[in-house]
Amino acid sequence: MPNVTLTFYPLNRKVTVSKGSTVLEAASKAQITINNLCGGDGICGRCKMIVLKGEVSGEISGKLTREEIRNGYILACMTHVENDLIIEIPEETLAKEKAKADEDAARFKDFRAELPYEEFKVLPLVQKIFLDLKTPTLSNNIADQQRVSGEIKRRLNLPSMQMGLKIMKSLSQILRENDFKVTATVGVRKDIAEVMNIEPGNTEKDNYMVVVDIGTTTIVAHIIDVSSLKTLDATACFNSQGIYGRDVISRIITSEKKGGELLQKLIIEDINKLILNLSENNSINLKDITAVVCAGNTTMNHFLLGLPTGNIRRNPYIPVTVEPPPLRAAEVGIQINPRGLLYSLPGISGWVGSDITAGILATGIYRRDDVCLLIDIGTNGEIVLGNKEWLVAASASAGPALEGASIDCGMRAEPGAIEEVYQNGLEIEYKTIDNRKPLGICGSGIIDLLAVLFRTGIINRTGKFIKEDDKRIIMMNDKKTFILVDEVKTGLKKPIYITESDIEGIITAKAAIYAAMKILMARMNLEASDLAHFFIAGAFGSFIDIENAITIGLIPDVSREKIEFVGNASLSGAKISAFYKEAFQKITDIRKMTTYYDLMAANDYVEEFQRAMFLPHTNLEDFPNVCSKPPCAQARRRKIG
Amino acid sequence: MPNVTLTFYPLNRKVTVSKGSTVLEAASKAQITINNLCGGDGICGRCKMIVLKGEVSGEISGKLTREEIRNGYILACMTHVENDLIIEIPEETLAKEKAKADEDAARFKDFRAELPYEEFKVLPLVQKIFLDLKTPTLSNNIADQQRVSGEIKRRLNLPSMQMGLKIMKSLSQILRENDFKVTATVGVRKDIAEVMNIEPGNTEKDNYMVVVDIGTTTIVAHIIDVSSLKTLDATACFNSQGIYGRDVISRIITSEKKGGELLQKLIIEDINKLILNLSENNSINLKDITAVVCAGNTTMNHFLLGLPTGNIRRNPYIPVTVEPPPLRAAEVGIQINPRGLLYSLPGISGWVGSDITAGILATGIYRRDDVCLLIDIGTNGEIVLGNKEWLVAASASAGPALEGASIDCGMRAEPGAIEEVYQNGLEIEYKTIDNRKPLGICGSGIIDLLAVLFRTGIINRTGKFIKEDDKRIIMMNDKKTFILVDEVKTGLKKPIYITESDIEGIITAKAAIYAAMKILMARMNLEASDLAHFFIAGAFGSFIDIENAITIGLIPDVSREKIEFVGNASLSGAKISAFYKEAFQKITDIRKMTTYYDLMAANDYVEEFQRAMFLPHTNLEDFPNVCSKPPCAQARRRKIG
Repeated sequence: MPNVTLTFYPLNRKVTVSKGSTVLEAASKAQITINNLCGGDGICGRCKMIVLKGEVSGEISGKLTREEIRNGYILACMTHVENDLIIEIPEETLAKEKAKADEDAARFKDFRAELPYEEFKVLPLVQKIFLDLKTPTLSNNIADQQRVSGEIKRRLNLPSMQMGLKIMKSLSQILRENDFKVTATVGVRKDIAEVMNIEPGNTEKDNYMVVVDIGTTTIVAHIIDVSSLKTLDATACFNSQGIYGRDVISRIITSEKKGGELLQKLIIEDINKLILNLSENNSINLKDITAVVCAGNTTMNHFLLGLPTGNIRRNPYIPVTVEPPPLRAAEVGIQINPRGLLYSLPGISGWVGSDITAGILATGIYRRDDVCLLIDIGTNGEIVLGNKEWLVAASASAGPALEGASIDCGMRAEPGAIEEVYQNGLEIEYKTIDNRKPLGICGSGIIDLLAVLFRTGIINRTGKFIKEDDKRIIMMNDKKTFILVDEVKTGLKKPIYITESDIEGIITAKAAIYAAMKILMARMNLEASDLAHFFIAGAFGSFIDIENAITIGLIPDVSREKIEFVGNASLSGAKISAFYKEAFQKITDIRKMTTYYDLMAANDYVEEFQRAMFLPHTNLEDFPNVCSKPPCAQARRRKIG
Repeated sequence: MPNVTLTFYPLNRKVTVSKGSTVLEAASKAQITINNLCGGDGICGRCKMIVLKGEVSGEISGKLTREEIRNGYILACMTHVENDLIIEIPEETLAKEKAKADEDAARFKDFRAELPYEEFKVLPLVQKIFLDLKTPTLSNNIADQQRVSGEIKRRLNLPSMQMGLKIMKSLSQILRENDFKVTATVGVRKDIAEVMNIEPGNTEKDNYMVVVDIGTTTIVAHIIDVSSLKTLDATACFNSQGIYGRDVISRIITSEKKGGELLQKLIIEDINKLILNLSENNSINLKDITAVVCAGNTTMNHFLLGLPTGNIRRNPYIPVTVEPPPLRAAEVGIQINPRGLLYSLPGISGWVGSDITAGILATGIYRRDDVCLLIDIGTNGEIVLGNKEWLVAASASAGPALEGASIDCGMRAEPGAIEEVYQNGLEIEYKTIDNRKPLGICGSGIIDLLAVLFRTGIINRTGKFIKEDDKRIIMMNDKKTFILVDEVKTGLKKPIYITESDIEGIITAKAAIYAAMKILMARMNLEASDLAHFFIAGAFGSFIDIENAITIGLIPDVSREKIEFVGNASLSGAKISAFYKEAFQKITDIRKMTTYYDLMAANDYVEEFQRAMFLPHTNLEDFPNVCSKPPCAQARRRKIG
């Protein structure tokens, strides 16, 4: 394929790609992150760009207005490059990557205090141990390897020890050049400790690990100091795979079409970028980073390791592995110490990954007497129910509505996103992230809006607009639409609104999650009131308004003091595993003790789902604290706790 | 360096080497094995060749007569190639490699009956296990790796299981393409079982291993069938490192000068050649050879793995390792299944290797109540003393005399070598291997000759010729010499003889070994009469005449029924380890329970050595059954048992 060159304004960034690539692929290659939500399927209409010069081909999207098409607008994901192009990217199309990454990083940096550290003995997955060995003599004539291994075994109280050929080859020389005073880097792989490295002198202090939560949307990385057991710094970036779909299914399909290596490469590049960033900002030599510990959903973990993902999306949804062995990080291309290790935490099934097992560890459900529920709400809602005796898990396919995608005015939680909606007298008011000019609505705002519309009687229990005379309700593209932000009043280019079909999407999403919880509880003969703790994990969970989430029936009407936001429990769990070998082992135990329940096998799931397609639910007795006859004057609190 | 071409007659073999190489190196590259005993030091004078055409440079050796030099004779090891050469190799210079290899192979093929098989449970180091797995369903939705590992763990009753990334990448596809009926190749690495391979269908029957004894002189390999627990075939070759020295010290020095890779390459090539030979002769696919199990002295094992050997020859004689981890065979270049394993058995010290630990296993000393002694006589005599409670080991540097090297007319045990010498009335007669025309004397013949000379009163207890009037004793090159084979009577080109300095060399060698046994026994407050078993291992041991060996004081004067020739106990032990994982582990236990005693640290070693410099010994009371006042008429038996 011949190459063509694209220039992107206003960034003034040039990139060369082969003819026929999409403009979105070119933008990605130019390291421009754009507001693409559907992942290149031409559905979300977020990747609008303007062709200033040059020729393109491809389908015309219904997401573009006639006027936009006249003005050279394209959807980058559906447009193929034919020759050299000059492209302008409108402000609303450009993602505010840095802001989001900083926010994510900051948000999850200071979680340490809440962790059950006292439970385990400190034993990092990779340790550095200074060895001050005796020089051999005729009467103390142990071989070099056995001298080194013996001392390490004694110090760590370990039965077995491995050493690779490469290290053995240089061992004699390094011992003798340094008067038998060396530092061994010792990593734990399953039950066996491995001498990964031997360095001159005492370098015990120079031992760092990077802990990574590989989200489908965002990748968060923390760097931790093994000698002080402290988190030094945190950073985050969007998962570059986003260009091939916002959800895991799209990415699996892409990997089947284009090969899994492509998807693996993107994740590895992201992780390497984050590691480099952390090492540079903290003046840490890459060679002193001895391990990377990763949690994430099973598909992301498969991409990380370059494993095929096709069977995860096909009935009966079987992954290659839920407990990958520790590998040399270099084997997948992660750039730390060349002999450094990559630990992928064990998960439960193709649809309940190690982000959830790490969450079970971090929340301590596995050691509690009372029954707890843990939910991580995203495109899929992963749910865990149980206590120290038993654990069951399921995954509900909620779709992207709750994250602001597939909603006309939906957007990611970035500056300018409406993150809160509330009633102020007769007015419905809002607050944007960073108090910027409103650009769209993110997940927490959508839940608020739906609750407010319901509570004020603007929509009924099926999500239909019933206040026919409300002047905020208009017909737009043949759809009943509620205008939240009027473009005329606010000077925006276009209004911010919600349509009846948007609302249906949101109700579908919340019904899928609620029904899943219901089924899991029913299988264990439990009611919501039996739950001792209701943990909400994940970035999304941290920002939603509990009362509103209960009002729309997304989460059950449990006592509010039982509800706890646990933030990025995936990263927390991964970090505990990094510092405490027993905790790492505990995640394997958790994996084994958790029964994965596939909702596709539940005959009553569809029924439960349909019962949840109302606000808050068909069974009002399940929601005694929700005012079921709107409009109502019930007080509502902002956030809990 | 420019290249030059050599042609070797009568083989008519051509080879190209860089200018300045020795003729010996060129012959080796042309795969011609010659009768080189000193390993290229110009000492043995065995590598005589004739330059028919071309120019050479290098020192003139005192080993060549004036006439030989006039006729173009050179020592190949000391002669450098200057331009293209045509070389003739005299018959006596060419080694009878094939004959020797066949002999060694045949000799050790049928040892199976004598092994303590009943002691261990059959559990080969590498197994193939046919898995007839259930196809996943929504309710049986275990991940592929866990499905495979779980079944293997159940079948083998193992707690832990590893699987490499490469296998995981293809696992899903191979399972589904074969209806979940596959064969797993499972290897044991320390306490962890590793899935090395997954193949379609049932291939349990196609599982072979090669067991190798890496001797300094000879490499012996057997191929074993894991499913029937049988030895299928055996083969052997000279260790190609011989060109760089016949003993380990010369090879270590070479590796320090020229790099260890050179020595490693030669061993690996030899082993690959043997494996290829075994696989072709038995129609076995190389990919079905799943492991190579090696025993050998510590230096050979280091060369095999490419580990530096320099410290083994320097006080305090420390090897890199005495217990190398199992490796992938491909990591050192051994060509079997690409994921096949290489097990190097654990040894005891730099000078007591895994050939000895394997011998301890094969002879069962480690589980016997009575005290036993095991000796392997070669350039070094390795000695083990002990029982199930304790084991001590030492190594005596005997030098090459007992193997026929450094003796003017010495040669390897090849067709034409005098292997027996005996008294027939007044005559001293001999027998050659294969009853060929005599070419020289090999080890067993040398011991016989010394015993006969002593018994007939031709030499005294210090090894000096005392029958001044015996016409078979002449002066040759200023040395008193006994003519065993007269060239005039037999039509040989030159006589076969032994000199007083040859005899001194032999006495020195036997004294070194005897003193070592004495010291070890003294340390444990034992006398030779306390020994319950006296095991003699190795090719050399199998052919010596016990009475004569006791007569010259090489081995102690113990009851003859206690003496047992155990053949290639190294290979036997390695084979047991291959079939019985517990036996492999037992060798580690043996290694750990054996105390290595360095004779250099024994203040009384020199004294003991000097006391042994007599025939049979200074203390005649140690040899009550040896007639100490020759000539004597004591009956002597050929061979024992």
